[in-house]
Amino acid sequence: MSEGPASLIGKKYPAKKHAQNVLKLFIKSRNSTDPNPVNFFISGEDLVLYKYSDQSKPFRQDRYFFYLSGCNIPGAHVLYNGKEDKLTLYLPDVDKEDIMWSGLPLSKEEAAKKYDADEIKYAADIEQDLKNLANSGSGSGKGGALTTDLNPCNAQFTAYLSEKDKDFLFALDESRAFKDDYELELMKHAAKITDNCHLAVMSALPIETKETHIHAEFMYHALRQGSKNQSYDPICCSGETCSTLHWVKNDGEITPEKHSILIDAGAEWECYASDVTRCFPVNGDWTKEHLDIYNLVLKMQSEAYKLMKPGANWEDLHLRAHKVLIEGFLELGIFKKEYSVEEIFKAKGSARFFPHGLGHMLGMDTHDTAGYANYSDPDPLLCYLRIRRKLEPNMVVTNEPGCYFSPFLLEETLNNPETSKFIDRQVLDKYWYVGGVRIEDDVLITKDGYEVYTKITKDPEEISKIVKAGLAKGKEGFHIVV
Amino acid sequence: MSEGPASLIGKKYPAKKHAQNVLKLFIKSRNSTDPNPVNFFISGEDLVLYKYSDQSKPFRQDRYFFYLSGCNIPGAHVLYNGKEDKLTLYLPDVDKEDIMWSGLPLSKEEAAKKYDADEIKYAADIEQDLKNLANSGSGSGKGGALTTDLNPCNAQFTAYLSEKDKDFLFALDESRAFKDDYELELMKHAAKITDNCHLAVMSALPIETKETHIHAEFMYHALRQGSKNQSYDPICCSGETCSTLHWVKNDGEITPEKHSILIDAGAEWECYASDVTRCFPVNGDWTKEHLDIYNLVLKMQSEAYKLMKPGANWEDLHLRAHKVLIEGFLELGIFKKEYSVEEIFKAKGSARFFPHGLGHMLGMDTHDTAGYANYSDPDPLLCYLRIRRKLEPNMVVTNEPGCYFSPFLLEETLNNPETSKFIDRQVLDKYWYVGGVRIEDDVLITKDGYEVYTKITKDPEEISKIVKAGLAKGKEGFHIVV
Repeated sequence: MSEGPASLIGKKYPAKKHAQNVLKLFIKSRNSTDPNPVNFFISGEDLVLYKYSDQSKPFRQDRYFFYLSGCNIPGAHVLYNGKEDKLTLYLPDVDKEDIMWSGLPLSKEEAAKKYDADEIKYAADIEQDLKNLANSGSGSGKGGALTTDLNPCNAQFTAYLSEKDKDFLFALDESRAFKDDYELELMKHAAKITDNCHLAVMSALPIETKETHIHAEFMYHALRQGSKNQSYDPICCSGETCSTLHWVKNDGEITPEKHSILIDAGAEWECYASDVTRCFPVNGDWTKEHLDIYNLVLKMQSEAYKLMKPGANWEDLHLRAHKVLIEGFLELGIFKKEYSVEEIFKAKGSARFFPHGLGHMLGMDTHDTAGYANYSDPDPLLCYLRIRRKLEPNMVVTNEPGCYFSPFLLEETLNNPETSKFIDRQVLDKYWYVGGVRIEDDVLITKDGYEVYTKITKDPEEISKIVKAGLAKGKEGFHIVV
Repeated sequence: MSEGPASLIGKKYPAKKHAQNVLKLFIKSRNSTDPNPVNFFISGEDLVLYKYSDQSKPFRQDRYFFYLSGCNIPGAHVLYNGKEDKLTLYLPDVDKEDIMWSGLPLSKEEAAKKYDADEIKYAADIEQDLKNLANSGSGSGKGGALTTDLNPCNAQFTAYLSEKDKDFLFALDESRAFKDDYELELMKHAAKITDNCHLAVMSALPIETKETHIHAEFMYHALRQGSKNQSYDPICCSGETCSTLHWVKNDGEITPEKHSILIDAGAEWECYASDVTRCFPVNGDWTKEHLDIYNLVLKMQSEAYKLMKPGANWEDLHLRAHKVLIEGFLELGIFKKEYSVEEIFKAKGSARFFPHGLGHMLGMDTHDTAGYANYSDPDPLLCYLRIRRKLEPNMVVTNEPGCYFSPFLLEETLNNPETSKFIDRQVLDKYWYVGGVRIEDDVLITKDGYEVYTKITKDPEEISKIVKAGLAKGKEGFHIVV
């Protein structure tokens, strides 16, 4: 594996600070009538076999466990003793049989050097430790420790664990929402890997004749950089499939007459995500309509940036982007000039052209904790918005406006006289082939503004140059076997 | 997605023949006092979210479901009515909300064209259909249908399903063990993709300075060929890590002084696996010791082939390979010449140098059904052998002898005077750096012998030429961003 950011060499993932912060937030939100100190216990994910098979499913560490341990080993557990301010990491018991197949596991001594824990023990010690805690009356709930949920990894400790305490879950989610310097370095590194991957994809057109090839190109360069997991399944679209928001079939042919490509993909680094979308023209030359929409989405993004700072309401940024879209559509003639921006905005005329939210919290999960979406909001402009709170420093969010021409999505808009009246069908019909455009970057909210982590260019002229430079290399410039 | 083998264009995966064959085997193995006809019902895997997340886990279709349906759609089900010889495929109910994100699902009409089913229905119809079957008294067990196991996908049908009938499971496993022409075409195609990937890996040494790069190279070329899933996590080793059988960390540096590389990786095609291991020298020139062991393992494989035909006992092939290893070690001087092959063989002196089995059944699972391993066999030469039966035509197996120098694995052998006495430590010590060698191919058992599906060369001279031709291209011959 690659070494990761140089700035973190010799430093440990700050698991204990995370535990302390969760405790602080827990006490703050807890009803003060509960005077007990609190212990937290979280089990990491373990390897699970496929049904009827001796093969393991892909492993993905439990995010809450990682947050309190920094440990990516399957079958580990962590206990935070709130009274003693002591963090104990439990490694899985050593399975001699497994060593033959998989090699030697990390020793306790190596783990002590690697992880930010006060003590390293083995899983065999857990039951007694939890029992002691329960007997000492030192914890709330069942007295042993609070946990996220009971699952096959910790079912044997049921007697000592209280699951799903809502204040504990809230404290975990809120703590995760504000990234510390260490986490930000990991996220910057994920962003850097992803930038490189997008650049590779943009410059490999001679060998990208199928959406699958785009997917392959991205994965390849991510894995080469040590990013074994992607934050999510890459979305690789061309032409009309660009209008499908979560297109993951990636099975279309890329022909010159499709014109547009959209790739939404992000590498993961040490459990931290990046999430980036770029669009580019198949042959390097933007068509008029593709560029119209591209520039409009770019403006939606830049106008959202103008409002991005602590205290700003995310809904205001999102709705500003909608207004920019409406203004743009009026200029392009897709919306009829006889209607005003406000009129169309009030009638939700843009809802199905930009059907998703402007962005989401980003962290260990691609859609990270503490955004507090309200999917039952009756307002079609807001129901899919994944952040419903004010911005604060050290949040990381995505800024990802989009504009789509999907026959399915627009069916209702075009059939309802209240919204179809805004639309000039003759003009709209020129845009279907574009499919859709989304531009997405990862952004840290700072004390007085924001910092964009993802640097791969979104300038349409620069993109055009990169695509053309790649095309100039021809197929021969690439190592392919078939 | 790539189109797959030309020979299958216009043909359907023979799901119904599979169901009929399972029924035939079931009736054969069933106690004849049960006169009821039989119905089978199997639920495919559905999409499952990560805990506390709105993101789906990687999807892998249930193999028994695929065998009776040929359908790779999440959330589908299949019912075989044994009395009427009728196969019904149930598509997942259409979720309008999901179309917005994921696009239009396959229609019933499209499904009827694609799948070998007598009828296509939606999941909403299942309960009534199972109830009708139960009321008609047409099935054994609870009267509705036999199923593999009850799981979240079919928990609502519990009243009509009898799970884990051992004759049903046996019939499924035995039927899967014998591949029909359609399945063999899929497996040949998977093998062809994998051949190309191994060739790519062997010829990209200038950009393979880490094990991760080998992994990336394999995945890239597999995905480019439309193989989104690997049969298993690629094992990419260099130098001493070649001695770890299931090394999947793939995080070592590849330095010239490591000399040896081992890659065990296979692409999947339409749920069918391939499984191939190749070894090669880092700089194209075999060291003496590496080539000694390579040629020995090659001989173990070719001697096993000599016995490979219907009626042959797999154990005999496996034990023949052990004897070849012992003969080879005597020639190389690793075993002392004062001992005979039989003496060392009887004392299990080779057990820990070749600790795994000669091969396994191959099909939809990498370790496919109906091998009937006996992991509690006290004989160290046989306890990990995954096939304990006679070979028959249309089985597909791997032929994968290996020879390893693992300090951990050999600890016991070297400390026990009964086995250490055979070993000349001075000679053995020259071989540790090789780590290990394994050569693995996928083989169909034919009427009178066998056919090797995997064609990537294993000739040491040819391998040397491929590696050197790649090296001659230099870094510049490859498209890498960092």
